[in-house]
Amino acid sequence: MTLPYLFSLPTHGAAAEGWLTVAEATTLPFAVRRAYWITDVPAGQVRGRHTHRTLEQVFMALSGTLRITVECPGFARHTFELSQASQALYVPAGSWREVQFGAGAVLLCLASQEYDEADYEREPASNARAGQ
Amino acid sequence: MTLPYLFSLPTHGAAAEGWLTVAEATTLPFAVRRAYWITDVPAGQVRGRHTHRTLEQVFMALSGTLRITVECPGFARHTFELSQASQALYVPAGSWREVQFGAGAVLLCLASQEYDEADYEREPASNARAGQ
Repeated sequence: MTLPYLFSLPTHGAAAEGWLTVAEATTLPFAVRRAYWITDVPAGQVRGRHTHRTLEQVFMALSGTLRITVECPGFARHTFELSQASQALYVPAGSWREVQFGAGAVLLCLASQEYDEADYEREPASNARAGQ
Repeated sequence: MTLPYLFSLPTHGAAAEGWLTVAEATTLPFAVRRAYWITDVPAGQVRGRHTHRTLEQVFMALSGTLRITVECPGFARHTFELSQASQALYVPAGSWREVQFGAGAVLLCLASQEYDEADYEREPASNARAGQ
């Protein structure tokens, strides 16, 4: 069973020129089959509130701050704060997640599978079953 | 021969909740093997200034404005402006590119191959050979 964890991605640059962060096979826990990004979210709003049955994801805050609350079997509910573009949060299959956006926050998600509505569980109560 | 082009990625949302833009096999011209993002670039600075021999890339501005100048065989030098997170620029193999960052701009690149230093040509003069 894999639990959620924070990790750092390789970053190249300097303050005078900006920072480039790389995610590829050698630095990610899975092959990326989908990417999505969320922008222009009113500050303080919470998105997510679902469990993915099989999808693995990595989240980054490319701008601003994200507070990501994760709960999954074997892992007590915990809120991770992302505020650096090189910092990544791995969210395993079977995790309930809620994402609170700070002002101007930009979320990037890299995911292990393409979109599949059947992979979602949208009721928190069902979280107890996730990962079985 | 494929030339550079702008395209729109599917976007879901509303002004009250923010916008989610998706990139996956059905919406991209290649399978993604590498992602990178560039942040905290001083306004007006230009990055890039190289040709990739075989790499295909898609660029998005997740925040702020990017002005991306592209030149490749069969395509006159042209500057594309990206300022919406759902707008993407496809840059084919063999293209010279220069990227000017506006204030607070965040660049996301999805690429067809993992990093390979041998794929770079860093001299503009060599651009005439690219794609042959």
